[in-house]
Amino acid sequence: MTIQDLFYPRGVAVTGSMAEGKLGYELVKQLVDGGALNIYACNPKRTSAFGVPAFESVSQIGQPVDLVVIASPTASVASVLRECGAAGIRAAVVISSGFSETGNQAGEMEIIQIARQLGIRVVGPNCAGIVNTANHLFATLETRPPAGKMAFISQSGALGGAVLSWAEEQGVGISKFVSYGNRADLDEIELLPYLAEDVETSVVALYIESVSDGRAFRQVVSEFTRKKPLVVIKSGRSKSGQRAALSHTGSMAGSDAVYEAVLAESGAIRVSSVEEMFDLCKGFASLPCPKGNKIAIVTNSGGPGILTADQAERAGLEVGEINLNLKANLKGFLPPNCSLNNPIDLTVQGSGDQYKRTLTTVLNEFDSAVAINVATPYLDSLPLAGGIASAAHSSGKPVVANFMAGPVVKESIRFLESNGIPNFPSGERAAVVLAHMARYARQADRVITYPPAPAPAGESPRASGSIVLEPDAMDWLRRNGFPVPPFRFAATPDEALQACREIGFPVVMKVVSPEILHKSDFGGVILNIQDESSADLAYAKLAGIARSISFTGVIVYPMVMKTQEIILGISIDPQFGPVILLGAGGIYTEIMRDISLRLAPVSNQTAWMMIRELKSFPVLQGARGQAGGDLDALATLISKVSELPFLFPQVSELDINPVFLLAQGVLIGDIRVVLRR
Amino acid sequence: MTIQDLFYPRGVAVTGSMAEGKLGYELVKQLVDGGALNIYACNPKRTSAFGVPAFESVSQIGQPVDLVVIASPTASVASVLRECGAAGIRAAVVISSGFSETGNQAGEMEIIQIARQLGIRVVGPNCAGIVNTANHLFATLETRPPAGKMAFISQSGALGGAVLSWAEEQGVGISKFVSYGNRADLDEIELLPYLAEDVETSVVALYIESVSDGRAFRQVVSEFTRKKPLVVIKSGRSKSGQRAALSHTGSMAGSDAVYEAVLAESGAIRVSSVEEMFDLCKGFASLPCPKGNKIAIVTNSGGPGILTADQAERAGLEVGEINLNLKANLKGFLPPNCSLNNPIDLTVQGSGDQYKRTLTTVLNEFDSAVAINVATPYLDSLPLAGGIASAAHSSGKPVVANFMAGPVVKESIRFLESNGIPNFPSGERAAVVLAHMARYARQADRVITYPPAPAPAGESPRASGSIVLEPDAMDWLRRNGFPVPPFRFAATPDEALQACREIGFPVVMKVVSPEILHKSDFGGVILNIQDESSADLAYAKLAGIARSISFTGVIVYPMVMKTQEIILGISIDPQFGPVILLGAGGIYTEIMRDISLRLAPVSNQTAWMMIRELKSFPVLQGARGQAGGDLDALATLISKVSELPFLFPQVSELDINPVFLLAQGVLIGDIRVVLRR
Repeated sequence: MTIQDLFYPRGVAVTGSMAEGKLGYELVKQLVDGGALNIYACNPKRTSAFGVPAFESVSQIGQPVDLVVIASPTASVASVLRECGAAGIRAAVVISSGFSETGNQAGEMEIIQIARQLGIRVVGPNCAGIVNTANHLFATLETRPPAGKMAFISQSGALGGAVLSWAEEQGVGISKFVSYGNRADLDEIELLPYLAEDVETSVVALYIESVSDGRAFRQVVSEFTRKKPLVVIKSGRSKSGQRAALSHTGSMAGSDAVYEAVLAESGAIRVSSVEEMFDLCKGFASLPCPKGNKIAIVTNSGGPGILTADQAERAGLEVGEINLNLKANLKGFLPPNCSLNNPIDLTVQGSGDQYKRTLTTVLNEFDSAVAINVATPYLDSLPLAGGIASAAHSSGKPVVANFMAGPVVKESIRFLESNGIPNFPSGERAAVVLAHMARYARQADRVITYPPAPAPAGESPRASGSIVLEPDAMDWLRRNGFPVPPFRFAATPDEALQACREIGFPVVMKVVSPEILHKSDFGGVILNIQDESSADLAYAKLAGIARSISFTGVIVYPMVMKTQEIILGISIDPQFGPVILLGAGGIYTEIMRDISLRLAPVSNQTAWMMIRELKSFPVLQGARGQAGGDLDALATLISKVSELPFLFPQVSELDINPVFLLAQGVLIGDIRVVLRR
Repeated sequence: MTIQDLFYPRGVAVTGSMAEGKLGYELVKQLVDGGALNIYACNPKRTSAFGVPAFESVSQIGQPVDLVVIASPTASVASVLRECGAAGIRAAVVISSGFSETGNQAGEMEIIQIARQLGIRVVGPNCAGIVNTANHLFATLETRPPAGKMAFISQSGALGGAVLSWAEEQGVGISKFVSYGNRADLDEIELLPYLAEDVETSVVALYIESVSDGRAFRQVVSEFTRKKPLVVIKSGRSKSGQRAALSHTGSMAGSDAVYEAVLAESGAIRVSSVEEMFDLCKGFASLPCPKGNKIAIVTNSGGPGILTADQAERAGLEVGEINLNLKANLKGFLPPNCSLNNPIDLTVQGSGDQYKRTLTTVLNEFDSAVAINVATPYLDSLPLAGGIASAAHSSGKPVVANFMAGPVVKESIRFLESNGIPNFPSGERAAVVLAHMARYARQADRVITYPPAPAPAGESPRASGSIVLEPDAMDWLRRNGFPVPPFRFAATPDEALQACREIGFPVVMKVVSPEILHKSDFGGVILNIQDESSADLAYAKLAGIARSISFTGVIVYPMVMKTQEIILGISIDPQFGPVILLGAGGIYTEIMRDISLRLAPVSNQTAWMMIRELKSFPVLQGARGQAGGDLDALATLISKVSELPFLFPQVSELDINPVFLLAQGVLIGDIRVVLRR
């Protein structure tokens, strides 16, 4: 197993110049200073550094070597890899740059082909290296971090280095670190399964800018998060890039929203800053997860307690009331001026013993606690820290601290953290961590299975070029068993009248034109036409609108009485493939961004989860005496629509807007399909 | 002027025990160590501490004394104040506790009455004291903070102390500090106008748990924020307290939402944590405000740059593209591998000179900049800091830094901050600060005038007890010139038929019962009744619903064709008095919390601002080909409704739900009024 070779090599060869200040020299220095054993320097001049044995080539070492760290000039990396192959080395970290990141795709392809042929796995090229603190292995130029339970995988070398530098100050230790640079070979897809089994690691943080295979990523993350928490920073895409998308639905389903949906569904915790990443990793690395949502807040100052309670509720925790039984217990040892609501305010007189007994008492019924100490220079915080640590240990439940502020609490914070109680700069940040941990615990044991994509079948809708006219799209849907209302196409005033008669008044008439994508923006939809003379006028108006561009005719439907409206969209994401979007509330979809996204296809069960995710779910279900819609029929429709891009791979975009949500069943009110050319 | 006496006293008397470790002793120590001059100890035994002159009473000092700091036993505070009165001392800081906070309201009232009689202004009692760094005056037991431009007023002594302890670590200096404890006399209402004129102070932070006179607070804050920025932490009220509110509208307008609305309208910046408070104060204290929204991001690592851009956009800044002209300039001195989009990525090779020239170039067109340096141990960050500082100074525009991470950037951060460039732990936090500063600059020069409350006039609606039946409420509205549809009340089946005929089919019929507050929850509203037989059935159904409780009759209206719906509510907030709530979208109001709140009354102009604040404003205005509503008529209605609680002071709650928003005008669809008993 080569990933094991990477982290636990019997020997490490470093290639590249050993002249002072050069990469090879610095790498040997790091490895030696860090305490790794069996380091060998390899370079054409057989120069050593720091007294390690030196050879001309890795093939001459004559001792077991499992890992090579390559800092040789770009042009020699290929030959170094060939020598490694001959020497039986199966793991390489290529620090050297000058490959695809500078446009040298050919050079990168060459070294990867060589590595593949010789069975060598590569981290890099153009990477910041790897760390395994358990093994004192620091094959990187970055700061050596303290040992701990957090593994960090970074697509950015610079950010990776910053995180290593920052780890000690943030009170977080690192188990393993991998910067994979240009990701020419190994990346998170193989590293995550390894780290899922790594006993030194209890939480993984991942920084990504993109993924190469979206569906494989989803699968790996889903499996990983059943075993350990995964905290992800995914940097967003600029707005300007997203603006390019043509369709409205498409733009809402912009790629970053797809990442967001995939990460959420697969159980990862997405954060938006390195600080938040450290906060969460600190929590996960040092504490058991709360078994439920009930959080107690114990403080010696009212205000910060309330601010923490506010944030805890916002983050989804329950700042439950202290029940009478617990209150009676607390009254047994707390002075009468303490507030026994949650937050419990011990006042500035709160002692270490009071913190201990209060926390011990409430943790009998609560799932987690935040202990806040607003310190003053004339108060010794250390006994408080002692009381808190003691209560945390005896309860076995997660307790976090917020000792404010400045130098007067430095020593107490050190005490707390060395006793496994993480301290956060504010109670609010502490509450957010516990909220994430409780959510993780709730979902960790669920089994996620993704339905297989169906095979292509049947005919795409009739089209000229990429545009499908509404009558053709509706016809296609009807033939495929979708709930489509009766409709007629008409290309003359007489045909239009005949169509209205056949459908039966009141009717809706819409313009059909290959040039008009969003009909209602152009007044191209006329509702509630009651009689033949209105129908004549309507036809004339629609023909007039489209005359100067391209008028094909009109489509006539029966008028559907006002119901709740839904929108459904399919778009094809470059990283993740077909995506389905559900939006509620007609025009509210865009304004309120009340949407749910998933990779297609989705099962009926997932379709229901999407419906429940909508903010307007209570409205759809029937709120305040209003009738609810047929959500079973909607779920079936979502699932069926989600199969379309697989059944008909020519479909590149599809919007159903609106879907009428009836008391019984659903009806497709309009459809827009774009085919690949 | 006594507030001047408080901060710039010619002499300070400290009363209370001078035994080592006692409050009086510690206060004298702080004052002496801090460098204040003319300190006198006063206590019955004439004990001194730290060599300051000691007297039995303040009346014996015989030198000019403007401030007394009282740490005497609770029972002696009154007599100390009397002695101060005799000695001509007009400013007192009462550190002593044991007053209203322990239930001793009488003691507190006594000392305040004495102070009023003698013309003494009091800070406290039960407070943590005051600080004026400009004058080396530290009349507090808390940590002595470094001098700077931020004033801090705190309702919580403990939190105040924590902030002073933390200030140095956060890189923020303090100008003045006041902890006013039980706020028996002086509070923010008088301190803010003083600080608005204080040349040592450029930003004020305020921590409050409540205010005593909401309307005076609003006025003072509105005037203050025209001169200087005000950052406010207002700790929330627990959910359980808010749940108590009876009506739906009332609960949405819960007191914390009112604080939120008042703070926003009066130009204060509300934050939810001490960290955020420091961030903003640091920005305001060290930088000019950006004159516009365009922010440039210059980085040496892609990822953190993008995360910062994401957050900047979320916070309302514009991460605009670099125009061709600027790009051409940048290309003149940057290597080709730099990314010249915004964020501008100088890559890990970015030099101090490149930072300087890049920032100087883009600040010609952008309003502010974030300079990010993801440091590594083998990179000297100091030249980068130098380049950034130099560009910031020559541009005169606000530049903030994010130097990550850990010990390798400590020295550079010190350099930056001593050169007036604030550094933040993440680019995201830096962007939030600039966004707030740009928003503050935009609003700072606006003039806010609040319309006067109209005098009581006319009759309240007819009621038995506190409940007003719908026909009586509608009648009252009509008499007062509100847009009410025609309606009829009917108490028998025959009357109901007659009412329907008079109104004209289709009609709406609703139950009238003093026991049914939310009719639609009980099926008490029947829409779209088309003919007489349906009307008969409807009457029977409504009578049946209410029979077992209390059935008064039915009310009949014409059916209003589906339009957009609005809700309006009046509630009386205990701190702020009458409040008006505007909500959009019928049942969406609650689910989407799409609401806007103001203290009543509101002018037509403010009513328009409320309408524009709604997320669904584009829908109301007419989006995607749908007709817009008559928003002028709505604004007029809002303003008129906002006067009702003043015209009719008996009104304690009022909900208009829905208001039908027509193409021409508005119509009140339903009303619920509760009167004071």
